[in-house]
Amino acid sequence: MANYRFSVCYDGTRYDGWQHQKNTDQTIQGKLEGILLRFFGEPVDVHGSGRTDAGVHALAQVANFHSPAAAVPPQPEEMEKYINAYLPEDICVFGMELAPPRFHSRLTAAGKTYCYRIWTGEIKPVFMRRYVWWLPEKLDTEAMRKAGELFTGTHDYASFCANPRMKKSTVRTVDRLEIGRQGDMLTIRVHGTGFLHNMVRILVGTLAEVGRGERASQQISEALAVRDRSLAGPTAPACGLCLERVDYDPLFLPPVDLPEKNIG
Amino acid sequence: MANYRFSVCYDGTRYDGWQHQKNTDQTIQGKLEGILLRFFGEPVDVHGSGRTDAGVHALAQVANFHSPAAAVPPQPEEMEKYINAYLPEDICVFGMELAPPRFHSRLTAAGKTYCYRIWTGEIKPVFMRRYVWWLPEKLDTEAMRKAGELFTGTHDYASFCANPRMKKSTVRTVDRLEIGRQGDMLTIRVHGTGFLHNMVRILVGTLAEVGRGERASQQISEALAVRDRSLAGPTAPACGLCLERVDYDPLFLPPVDLPEKNIG
Repeated sequence: MANYRFSVCYDGTRYDGWQHQKNTDQTIQGKLEGILLRFFGEPVDVHGSGRTDAGVHALAQVANFHSPAAAVPPQPEEMEKYINAYLPEDICVFGMELAPPRFHSRLTAAGKTYCYRIWTGEIKPVFMRRYVWWLPEKLDTEAMRKAGELFTGTHDYASFCANPRMKKSTVRTVDRLEIGRQGDMLTIRVHGTGFLHNMVRILVGTLAEVGRGERASQQISEALAVRDRSLAGPTAPACGLCLERVDYDPLFLPPVDLPEKNIG
Repeated sequence: MANYRFSVCYDGTRYDGWQHQKNTDQTIQGKLEGILLRFFGEPVDVHGSGRTDAGVHALAQVANFHSPAAAVPPQPEEMEKYINAYLPEDICVFGMELAPPRFHSRLTAAGKTYCYRIWTGEIKPVFMRRYVWWLPEKLDTEAMRKAGELFTGTHDYASFCANPRMKKSTVRTVDRLEIGRQGDMLTIRVHGTGFLHNMVRILVGTLAEVGRGERASQQISEALAVRDRSLAGPTAPACGLCLERVDYDPLFLPPVDLPEKNIG
Protein backbone atom coordinates (compact mmCIF):
# COMPACT_ATOMS: atom_id res chain seq x y z
CA MET A 1 0.00 0.00 0.00
CA ALA A 2 1.65 3.20 -1.23
CA ASN A 3 0.50 6.83 -1.08
CA TYR A 4 0.67 8.51 -4.51
CA ARG A 5 0.78 12.32 -4.64
CA PHE A 6 0.45 14.24 -7.90
CA SER A 7 -0.63 17.49 -9.52
CA VAL A 8 -3.61 17.82 -11.86
CA CYS A 9 -4.01 20.50 -14.51
CA TYR A 10 -7.48 20.91 -16.02
CA ASP A 11 -9.59 23.13 -18.19
CA GLY A 12 -12.80 23.04 -16.15
CA THR A 13 -15.05 24.30 -18.98
CA ARG A 14 -16.61 20.91 -19.79
CA TYR A 15 -16.81 19.63 -16.21
CA ASP A 16 -19.25 19.69 -13.32
CA GLY A 17 -16.42 20.54 -10.95
CA TRP A 18 -13.79 18.48 -9.15
CA GLN A 19 -15.93 16.32 -6.89
CA HIS A 20 -17.65 13.15 -8.12
CA GLN A 21 -21.42 13.27 -7.99
CA LYS A 22 -24.13 10.70 -8.38
CA ASN A 23 -25.92 12.29 -11.33
CA THR A 24 -22.92 13.04 -13.59
CA ASP A 25 -19.72 11.36 -14.67
CA GLN A 26 -18.30 14.69 -15.88
CA THR A 27 -16.11 15.49 -12.88
CA ILE A 28 -12.32 15.55 -12.60
CA GLN A 29 -12.27 13.26 -9.57
CA GLY A 30 -14.67 10.89 -11.33
CA LYS A 31 -12.43 10.71 -14.43
CA LEU A 32 -9.36 9.92 -12.29
CA GLU A 33 -11.14 7.33 -10.16
CA GLY A 34 -12.53 5.67 -13.29
CA ILE A 35 -9.01 5.21 -14.65
CA LEU A 36 -7.68 3.88 -11.33
CA LEU A 37 -10.56 1.40 -11.13
CA ARG A 38 -9.54 0.15 -14.55
CA PHE A 39 -5.90 -0.13 -13.47
CA PHE A 40 -6.32 -1.77 -10.06
CA GLY A 41 -9.56 -3.66 -10.71
CA GLU A 42 -11.08 -2.22 -7.54
CA PRO A 43 -12.31 1.21 -6.42
CA VAL A 44 -9.70 3.73 -5.23
CA ASP A 45 -10.54 7.08 -3.60
CA VAL A 46 -8.75 10.13 -5.00
CA HIS A 47 -8.45 13.03 -2.51
CA GLY A 48 -8.09 16.55 -3.89
CA SER A 49 -6.85 19.56 -1.93
CA GLY A 50 -10.37 20.92 -2.22
CA ARG A 51 -13.36 21.06 -4.53
CA THR A 52 -13.34 23.38 -7.47
CA ASP A 53 -16.77 24.36 -8.80
CA ALA A 54 -18.18 23.62 -12.24
CA GLY A 55 -16.23 25.58 -14.87
CA VAL A 56 -13.31 26.49 -12.59
CA HIS A 57 -9.81 25.59 -13.82
CA ALA A 58 -6.66 24.34 -12.13
CA LEU A 59 -3.05 24.85 -13.08
CA ALA A 60 -1.88 22.52 -10.31
CA GLN A 61 -4.57 21.01 -8.12
CA VAL A 62 -2.89 18.54 -5.74
CA ALA A 63 -4.36 15.08 -5.14
CA ASN A 64 -3.39 11.74 -3.62
CA PHE A 65 -4.60 8.14 -3.43
CA HIS A 66 -3.48 4.91 -1.81
CA SER A 67 -2.91 1.82 -3.91
CA PRO A 68 -5.11 -1.10 -2.77
CA ALA A 69 -3.58 -3.28 -0.04
CA ALA A 70 -3.67 -6.36 -2.27
CA ALA A 71 -1.96 -4.70 -5.25
CA VAL A 72 1.76 -4.53 -5.93
CA PRO A 73 2.37 -0.76 -5.96
CA PRO A 74 3.49 0.38 -9.42
CA GLN A 75 6.33 2.85 -9.95
CA PRO A 76 5.03 6.46 -9.89
CA GLU A 77 6.26 7.09 -13.45
CA GLU A 78 4.31 4.07 -14.70
CA MET A 79 1.21 5.25 -12.82
CA GLU A 80 1.45 8.78 -14.30
CA LYS A 81 1.91 7.48 -17.82
CA TYR A 82 -1.07 5.14 -17.50
CA ILE A 83 -3.40 7.83 -16.17
CA ASN A 84 -2.38 10.37 -18.82
CA ALA A 85 -2.93 7.82 -21.57
CA TYR A 86 -6.61 7.52 -20.59
CA LEU A 87 -7.33 11.16 -19.67
CA PRO A 88 -9.11 13.43 -22.18
CA GLU A 89 -7.25 16.35 -23.77
CA ASP A 90 -8.41 18.87 -21.17
CA ILE A 91 -7.00 17.11 -18.09
CA CYS A 92 -3.45 16.01 -17.35
CA VAL A 93 -1.50 14.80 -14.33
CA PHE A 94 2.16 15.48 -13.57
CA GLY A 95 4.75 15.21 -10.80
CA MET A 96 3.52 11.80 -9.63
CA GLU A 97 5.58 10.62 -6.62
CA LEU A 98 5.24 8.58 -3.47
CA ALA A 99 4.38 10.63 -0.39
CA PRO A 100 4.71 9.88 3.31
CA PRO A 101 1.83 7.62 4.48
CA ARG A 102 0.12 10.42 6.45
CA PHE A 103 0.12 12.93 3.58
CA HIS A 104 -3.48 13.87 2.66
CA SER A 105 -4.09 16.47 -0.08
CA ARG A 106 -6.89 18.21 1.79
CA LEU A 107 -6.24 17.59 5.47
CA THR A 108 -2.58 18.57 5.36
CA ALA A 109 -2.95 21.54 2.97
CA ALA A 110 -1.51 24.73 4.48
CA GLY A 111 -2.56 27.32 1.88
CA LYS A 112 -3.86 27.91 -1.63
CA THR A 113 -3.36 30.44 -4.39
CA TYR A 114 -6.20 31.29 -6.74
CA CYS A 115 -5.95 33.59 -9.73
CA TYR A 116 -8.94 35.37 -11.27
CA ARG A 117 -8.63 36.95 -14.72
CA ILE A 118 -10.75 39.82 -16.05
CA TRP A 119 -10.35 40.88 -19.69
CA THR A 120 -11.30 44.54 -20.02
CA GLY A 121 -10.56 44.98 -23.74
CA GLU A 122 -13.31 46.10 -26.10
CA ILE A 123 -12.80 43.27 -28.57
CA LYS A 124 -14.20 39.86 -27.60
CA PRO A 125 -11.33 37.69 -26.29
CA VAL A 126 -11.85 34.85 -28.78
CA PHE A 127 -8.79 32.79 -27.80
CA MET A 128 -9.00 33.37 -24.04
CA ARG A 129 -12.78 33.23 -23.78
CA ARG A 130 -12.77 30.09 -21.64
CA TYR A 131 -10.32 31.48 -19.10
CA VAL A 132 -11.41 35.05 -18.43
CA TRP A 133 -14.40 37.13 -17.36
CA TRP A 134 -14.99 39.59 -20.18
CA LEU A 135 -15.86 43.02 -18.75
CA PRO A 136 -15.29 45.57 -21.55
CA GLU A 137 -15.25 48.52 -19.13
CA LYS A 138 -12.78 50.91 -17.59
CA LEU A 139 -12.13 49.60 -14.09
CA ASP A 140 -10.44 51.80 -11.49
CA THR A 141 -7.55 49.51 -10.55
CA GLU A 142 -6.31 51.80 -7.77
CA ALA A 143 -9.70 51.85 -6.06
CA MET A 144 -9.83 48.06 -6.38
CA ARG A 145 -6.37 47.71 -4.80
CA LYS A 146 -7.37 49.86 -1.84
CA ALA A 147 -10.59 47.90 -1.38
CA GLY A 148 -8.62 44.65 -1.75
CA GLU A 149 -6.54 45.57 1.29
CA LEU A 150 -9.70 45.45 3.41
CA PHE A 151 -10.08 41.78 2.51
CA THR A 152 -6.67 40.74 3.76
CA GLY A 153 -6.21 39.51 7.31
CA THR A 154 -8.42 37.26 9.41
CA HIS A 155 -12.13 37.97 9.09
CA ASP A 156 -15.52 36.35 9.30
CA TYR A 157 -16.32 36.01 5.60
CA ALA A 158 -19.93 34.87 6.09
CA SER A 159 -21.14 37.62 3.69
CA PHE A 160 -18.80 36.21 1.04
CA CYS A 161 -19.96 32.61 1.16
CA ALA A 162 -22.55 30.96 -1.10
CA ASN A 163 -23.98 28.55 1.47
CA PRO A 164 -22.72 29.16 5.00
CA ARG A 165 -23.46 26.12 7.11
CA MET A 166 -24.89 26.46 10.60
CA LYS A 167 -22.30 25.91 13.32
CA LYS A 168 -19.39 25.78 10.83
CA SER A 169 -16.93 28.63 11.23
CA THR A 170 -16.80 31.17 8.39
CA VAL A 171 -13.61 32.76 9.73
CA ARG A 172 -10.74 32.56 7.27
CA THR A 173 -7.35 34.22 6.74
CA VAL A 174 -6.39 35.88 3.45
CA ASP A 175 -2.62 36.55 3.50
CA ARG A 176 -2.30 38.30 0.16
CA LEU A 177 -4.58 39.84 -2.43
CA GLU A 178 -2.67 41.27 -5.39
CA ILE A 179 -4.21 43.06 -8.33
CA GLY A 180 -2.08 43.21 -11.46
CA ARG A 181 -2.70 44.75 -14.85
CA GLN A 182 -1.00 43.95 -18.14
CA GLY A 183 -2.61 45.93 -20.92
CA ASP A 184 -6.30 44.99 -20.92
CA MET A 185 -5.83 41.97 -18.62
CA LEU A 186 -6.54 42.34 -14.94
CA THR A 187 -5.44 39.56 -12.58
CA ILE A 188 -6.57 39.20 -8.99
CA ARG A 189 -4.36 36.72 -7.15
CA VAL A 190 -5.43 35.61 -3.68
CA HIS A 191 -3.54 33.49 -1.17
CA GLY A 192 -5.12 32.15 1.99
CA THR A 193 -5.17 29.19 4.34
CA GLY A 194 -8.61 28.18 3.18
CA PHE A 195 -11.63 29.52 1.32
CA LEU A 196 -15.40 29.27 1.75
CA HIS A 197 -17.70 28.15 -1.05
CA ASN A 198 -17.58 30.76 -3.87
CA MET A 199 -15.56 33.09 -1.63
CA VAL A 200 -12.99 34.14 -4.25
CA ARG A 201 -15.68 34.69 -6.91
CA ILE A 202 -17.77 36.83 -4.52
CA LEU A 203 -14.66 38.85 -3.54
CA VAL A 204 -13.99 39.43 -7.25
CA GLY A 205 -17.61 40.33 -8.01
CA THR A 206 -17.48 42.85 -5.16
CA LEU A 207 -14.14 44.30 -6.30
CA ALA A 208 -15.51 44.68 -9.85
CA GLU A 209 -18.28 46.86 -8.44
CA VAL A 210 -15.63 48.98 -6.70
CA GLY A 211 -13.73 49.21 -10.02
CA ARG A 212 -16.86 50.51 -11.73
CA GLY A 213 -17.41 53.07 -9.01
CA GLU A 214 -20.63 51.40 -7.90
CA ARG A 215 -19.45 50.50 -4.41
CA ALA A 216 -17.46 52.43 -1.80
CA SER A 217 -14.80 50.85 0.40
CA GLN A 218 -16.97 51.62 3.43
CA GLN A 219 -19.53 49.12 2.13
CA ILE A 220 -16.88 46.40 2.12
CA SER A 221 -16.04 47.03 5.76
CA GLU A 222 -19.75 46.80 6.49
CA ALA A 223 -20.14 43.57 4.56
CA LEU A 224 -17.24 42.09 6.53
CA ALA A 225 -18.70 43.28 9.86
CA VAL A 226 -22.26 42.06 9.29
CA ARG A 227 -22.82 38.42 8.31
CA ASP A 228 -25.17 38.95 5.37
CA ARG A 229 -24.60 37.66 1.82
CA SER A 230 -26.80 40.41 0.36
CA LEU A 231 -24.30 43.07 1.47
CA ALA A 232 -21.57 41.68 -0.81
CA GLY A 233 -21.41 41.89 -4.61
CA PRO A 234 -22.44 39.26 -7.17
CA THR A 235 -20.57 36.00 -7.75
CA ALA A 236 -18.11 36.46 -10.64
CA PRO A 237 -18.34 33.79 -13.41
CA ALA A 238 -16.54 30.49 -12.84
CA CYS A 239 -14.53 30.63 -16.10
CA GLY A 240 -12.21 33.41 -14.83
CA LEU A 241 -11.04 31.40 -11.81
CA CYS A 242 -8.03 29.10 -11.65
CA LEU A 243 -6.54 27.21 -8.70
CA GLU A 244 -2.84 27.91 -9.21
CA ARG A 245 -1.01 26.34 -6.31
CA VAL A 246 -1.48 24.40 -3.07
CA ASP A 247 1.05 24.69 -0.23
CA TYR A 248 1.91 21.99 2.32
CA ASP A 249 3.87 21.85 5.50
CA PRO A 250 7.39 20.71 4.54
CA LEU A 251 6.93 17.86 7.01
CA PHE A 252 4.64 16.10 4.55
CA LEU A 253 6.57 16.95 1.42
CA PRO A 254 9.64 14.68 1.16
CA PRO A 255 9.00 12.05 -1.49
CA VAL A 256 9.51 8.48 -0.35
CA ASP A 257 10.65 5.33 -2.19
CA LEU A 258 8.84 2.08 -2.75
CA PRO A 259 10.04 -0.63 -0.34
CA GLU A 260 12.16 -2.97 -2.43
CA LYS A 261 10.11 -6.07 -1.74
CA ASN A 262 7.08 -4.43 -3.34
CA ILE A 263 8.64 -3.69 -6.70
CA GLY A 264 7.18 -6.16 -9.14
CA MET B 1 -23.68 50.60 -52.38
CA ALA B 2 -20.83 50.84 -49.87
CA ASN B 3 -17.70 48.73 -49.44
CA TYR B 4 -17.28 47.50 -45.85
CA ARG B 5 -13.83 46.44 -44.68
CA PHE B 6 -13.25 44.69 -41.35
CA SER B 7 -11.03 42.30 -39.40
CA VAL B 8 -12.14 38.88 -38.23
CA CYS B 9 -10.68 37.01 -35.25
CA TYR B 10 -11.53 33.30 -34.99
CA ASP B 11 -10.66 30.15 -33.16
CA GLY B 12 -10.69 27.74 -36.13
CA THR B 13 -10.98 24.57 -34.02
CA ARG B 14 -14.66 23.93 -34.71
CA TYR B 15 -14.64 25.07 -38.34
CA ASP B 16 -14.09 23.57 -41.77
CA GLY B 17 -11.93 26.54 -42.72
CA TRP B 18 -12.67 30.03 -43.99
CA GLN B 19 -14.31 29.31 -47.31
CA HIS B 20 -17.99 28.38 -47.64
CA GLN B 21 -18.61 24.91 -49.02
CA LYS B 22 -21.66 23.10 -50.25
CA ASN B 23 -21.57 20.21 -47.79
CA THR B 24 -21.04 22.14 -44.54
CA ASP B 25 -22.28 25.31 -42.89
CA GLN B 26 -19.38 25.28 -40.44
CA THR B 27 -17.17 27.83 -42.19
CA ILE B 28 -16.25 31.36 -41.13
CA GLN B 29 -17.28 32.89 -44.46
CA GLY B 30 -20.55 30.94 -44.31
CA LYS B 31 -21.34 32.24 -40.80
CA LEU B 32 -20.71 35.84 -41.88
CA GLU B 33 -22.72 35.55 -45.10
CA GLY B 34 -25.59 33.95 -43.19
CA ILE B 35 -25.76 36.97 -40.87
CA LEU B 36 -25.57 39.45 -43.77
CA LEU B 37 -28.37 37.60 -45.58
CA ARG B 38 -30.48 38.03 -42.47
CA PHE B 39 -29.62 41.74 -42.27
CA PHE B 40 -30.05 42.74 -45.93
CA GLY B 41 -32.65 40.17 -46.93
CA GLU B 42 -30.57 39.15 -49.94
CA PRO B 43 -27.27 37.28 -50.48
CA VAL B 44 -24.03 39.23 -50.01
CA ASP B 45 -20.57 37.88 -50.88
CA VAL B 46 -17.89 38.25 -48.21
CA HIS B 47 -14.33 38.28 -49.58
CA GLY B 48 -11.50 37.19 -47.28
CA SER B 49 -7.80 37.95 -47.84
CA GLY B 50 -7.36 34.24 -48.44
CA ARG B 51 -8.64 30.86 -47.33
CA THR B 52 -7.51 29.41 -44.06
CA ASP B 53 -7.77 25.63 -43.77
CA ALA B 54 -9.91 23.66 -41.35
CA GLY B 55 -8.62 24.17 -37.80
CA VAL B 56 -6.41 27.18 -38.63
CA HIS B 57 -6.95 30.35 -36.54
CA ALA B 58 -6.88 34.05 -37.32
CA LEU B 59 -6.02 36.96 -35.08
CA ALA B 60 -6.95 39.45 -37.80
CA GLN B 61 -8.14 38.01 -41.09
CA VAL B 62 -9.24 40.91 -43.32
CA ALA B 63 -12.51 40.76 -45.26
CA ASN B 64 -14.86 43.04 -47.19
CA PHE B 65 -18.33 43.05 -48.71
CA HIS B 66 -20.51 45.48 -50.65
CA SER B 67 -23.95 46.39 -49.36
CA PRO B 68 -26.68 45.54 -51.93
CA ALA B 69 -27.45 48.30 -54.44
CA ALA B 70 -31.05 48.54 -53.25
CA ALA B 71 -30.19 48.84 -49.55
CA VAL B 72 -29.50 52.04 -47.62
CA PRO B 73 -25.94 51.46 -46.39
CA PRO B 74 -25.85 51.25 -42.58
CA GLN B 75 -23.19 52.98 -40.49
CA PRO B 76 -20.13 50.71 -40.05
CA GLU B 77 -20.53 50.72 -36.24
CA GLU B 78 -24.11 49.54 -36.58
CA MET B 79 -23.02 46.82 -39.02
CA GLU B 80 -20.25 45.60 -36.68
CA LYS B 81 -22.57 45.49 -33.67
CA TYR B 82 -25.19 43.55 -35.60
CA ILE B 83 -22.74 40.94 -36.90
CA ASN B 84 -21.12 40.42 -33.48
CA ALA B 85 -24.52 39.96 -31.86
CA TYR B 86 -25.19 36.93 -34.09
CA LEU B 87 -21.68 35.41 -34.21
CA PRO B 88 -20.84 32.44 -31.95
CA GLU B 89 -18.32 32.87 -29.11
CA ASP B 90 -15.35 31.72 -31.21
CA ILE B 91 -15.64 34.35 -33.95
CA CYS B 92 -15.67 38.13 -33.69
CA VAL B 93 -15.34 41.07 -36.08
CA PHE B 94 -13.73 44.42 -35.32
CA GLY B 95 -12.49 47.60 -37.01
CA MET B 96 -15.46 47.81 -39.38
CA GLU B 97 -15.08 50.84 -41.71
CA LEU B 98 -15.93 51.95 -45.21
CA ALA B 99 -13.18 51.33 -47.75
CA PRO B 100 -12.53 52.81 -51.20
CA PRO B 101 -14.78 51.16 -53.82
CA ARG B 102 -11.88 49.27 -55.41
CA PHE B 103 -10.58 47.77 -52.18
CA HIS B 104 -10.76 43.94 -52.32
CA SER B 105 -9.43 41.91 -49.38
CA ARG B 106 -7.79 39.28 -51.56
CA LEU B 107 -6.95 41.02 -54.84
CA THR B 108 -5.35 44.07 -53.23
CA ALA B 109 -3.52 42.22 -50.41
CA ALA B 110 0.21 42.97 -50.42
CA GLY B 111 1.49 40.57 -47.78
CA LYS B 112 0.56 38.27 -44.90
CA THR B 113 2.05 37.27 -41.57
CA TYR B 114 1.44 33.79 -40.19
CA CYS B 115 2.57 32.55 -36.80
CA TYR B 116 3.07 28.88 -35.98
CA ARG B 117 3.40 27.79 -32.33
CA ILE B 118 5.15 24.65 -31.10
CA TRP B 119 4.97 23.76 -27.41
CA THR B 120 8.01 21.70 -26.49
CA GLY B 121 7.30 21.26 -22.76
CA GLU B 122 6.96 17.78 -21.28
CA ILE B 123 3.60 18.47 -19.65
CA LYS B 124 0.54 18.46 -21.88
CA PRO B 125 -0.44 22.09 -22.64
CA VAL B 126 -4.00 21.80 -21.32
CA PHE B 127 -4.94 25.48 -21.69
CA MET B 128 -3.16 26.09 -25.01
CA ARG B 129 -3.96 22.74 -26.57
CA ARG B 130 -6.10 24.23 -29.33
CA TYR B 131 -3.45 26.74 -30.41
CA VAL B 132 -0.17 24.84 -30.43
CA TRP B 133 1.49 21.76 -31.89
CA TRP B 134 2.67 19.74 -28.89
CA LEU B 135 6.14 18.31 -29.57
CA PRO B 136 7.64 17.32 -26.20
CA GLU B 137 11.17 17.10 -27.58
CA LYS B 138 14.39 19.05 -27.49
CA LEU B 139 14.52 20.97 -30.77
CA ASP B 140 17.77 22.53 -31.97
CA THR B 141 16.58 26.11 -32.42
CA GLU B 142 19.88 27.29 -33.91
CA ALA B 143 19.83 24.60 -36.60
CA MET B 144 16.21 25.54 -37.35
CA ARG B 145 17.14 29.24 -37.68
CA LYS B 146 19.92 28.43 -40.12
CA ALA B 147 17.63 26.20 -42.17
CA GLY B 148 14.93 28.86 -42.03
CA GLU B 149 17.22 31.29 -43.81
CA LEU B 150 17.21 28.99 -46.83
CA PHE B 151 13.45 29.49 -47.12
CA THR B 152 13.62 33.26 -47.34
CA GLY B 153 13.80 34.98 -50.71
CA THR B 154 12.01 34.15 -53.95
CA HIS B 155 11.80 30.45 -54.74
CA ASP B 156 9.70 27.88 -56.53
CA TYR B 157 7.95 26.30 -53.55
CA ALA B 158 6.35 23.44 -55.53
CA SER B 159 7.80 20.90 -53.05
CA PHE B 160 6.07 22.79 -50.23
CA CYS B 161 2.59 22.82 -51.68
CA ALA B 162 -0.23 20.33 -50.96
CA ASN B 163 -1.86 20.42 -54.41
CA PRO B 164 0.19 22.30 -56.98
CA ARG B 165 -2.04 23.06 -59.97
CA MET B 166 -0.83 22.57 -63.51
CA LYS B 167 0.15 25.82 -65.22
CA LYS B 168 -0.24 27.87 -62.03
CA SER B 169 2.99 29.40 -60.79
CA THR B 170 4.37 28.02 -57.52
CA VAL B 171 6.93 30.81 -57.21
CA ARG B 172 6.50 32.89 -54.05
CA THR B 173 8.52 35.36 -51.99
CA VAL B 174 9.10 34.89 -48.27
CA ASP B 175 10.50 38.15 -46.83
CA ARG B 176 11.01 37.07 -43.25
CA LEU B 177 11.08 33.84 -41.29
CA GLU B 178 11.78 34.40 -37.59
CA ILE B 179 12.10 31.68 -34.99
CA GLY B 180 11.60 32.76 -31.40
CA ARG B 181 11.71 30.85 -28.15
CA GLN B 182 10.21 31.80 -24.81
CA GLY B 183 10.72 29.01 -22.33
CA ASP B 184 9.13 25.91 -23.84
CA MET B 185 7.23 27.84 -26.53
CA LEU B 186 8.70 28.04 -30.02
CA THR B 187 7.17 30.50 -32.49
CA ILE B 188 7.84 30.50 -36.21
CA ARG B 189 6.65 33.76 -37.76
CA VAL B 190 6.59 34.00 -41.55
CA HIS B 191 5.89 37.01 -43.73
CA GLY B 192 5.43 36.78 -47.48
CA THR B 193 3.52 38.24 -50.40
CA GLY B 194 1.49 35.07 -50.79
CA PHE B 195 1.48 31.43 -49.79
CA LEU B 196 0.63 28.16 -51.53
CA HIS B 197 -1.82 25.65 -50.08
CA ASN B 198 -0.36 24.24 -46.80
CA MET B 199 2.95 25.99 -47.52
CA VAL B 200 3.53 27.35 -44.00
CA ARG B 201 2.58 24.05 -42.40
CA ILE B 202 4.95 22.10 -44.68
CA LEU B 203 7.77 24.61 -43.98
CA VAL B 204 7.16 24.09 -40.25
CA GLY B 205 7.00 20.28 -40.57
CA THR B 206 10.31 20.40 -42.44
CA LEU B 207 11.93 22.73 -39.88
CA ALA B 208 10.78 20.44 -37.04
CA GLU B 209 12.71 17.60 -38.70
CA VAL B 210 15.77 19.85 -38.80
CA GLY B 211 15.25 20.67 -35.11
CA ARG B 212 15.23 16.96 -34.27
CA GLY B 213 18.41 16.40 -36.25
CA GLU B 214 16.60 14.22 -38.78
CA ARG B 215 17.20 16.49 -41.76
CA ALA B 216 20.27 18.42 -42.94
CA SER B 217 20.11 21.90 -44.43
CA GLN B 218 21.42 20.46 -47.71
CA GLN B 219 18.16 18.52 -48.08
CA ILE B 220 16.20 21.75 -47.86
CA SER B 221 18.18 23.29 -50.70
CA GLU B 222 17.47 20.14 -52.70
CA ALA B 223 13.76 20.25 -51.93
CA LEU B 224 13.68 23.87 -53.11
CA ALA B 225 15.60 23.04 -56.31
CA VAL B 226 13.57 19.98 -57.31
CA ARG B 227 9.77 20.29 -57.58
CA ASP B 228 8.77 17.22 -55.58
CA ARG B 229 6.51 17.21 -52.51
CA SER B 230 8.09 13.98 -51.25
CA LEU B 231 11.42 15.77 -50.70
CA ALA B 232 9.92 18.10 -48.06
CA GLY B 233 8.84 17.20 -44.53
CA PRO B 234 5.33 16.38 -43.26
CA THR B 235 2.52 18.92 -42.94
CA ALA B 236 2.44 20.29 -39.38
CA PRO B 237 -0.99 20.16 -37.67
CA ALA B 238 -3.48 22.96 -38.44
CA CYS B 239 -4.06 23.90 -34.77
CA GLY B 240 -0.61 25.53 -34.39
CA LEU B 241 -1.18 27.98 -37.25
CA CYS B 242 -2.62 31.49 -36.95
CA LEU B 243 -3.06 34.19 -39.61
CA GLU B 244 -1.84 37.24 -37.71
CA ARG B 245 -1.91 40.15 -40.11
CA VAL B 246 -2.67 41.14 -43.70
CA ASP B 247 -0.91 44.11 -45.34
CA TYR B 248 -2.34 46.37 -48.04
CA ASP B 249 -0.99 49.03 -50.31
CA PRO B 250 -1.63 52.37 -48.54
CA LEU B 251 -3.49 53.43 -51.70
CA PHE B 252 -6.41 51.22 -50.69
CA LEU B 253 -6.33 51.91 -47.00
CA PRO B 254 -7.85 55.35 -46.32
CA PRO B 255 -11.30 54.87 -44.81
CA VAL B 256 -14.09 56.71 -46.61
CA ASP B 257 -17.36 58.21 -45.40
CA LEU B 258 -20.92 57.39 -46.35
CA PRO B 259 -22.35 59.90 -48.85
CA GLU B 260 -24.81 61.99 -46.89
CA LYS B 261 -27.80 61.18 -49.06
CA ASN B 262 -27.46 57.51 -48.23
CA ILE B 263 -27.65 57.84 -44.49
CA GLY B 264 -31.04 56.58 -43.45
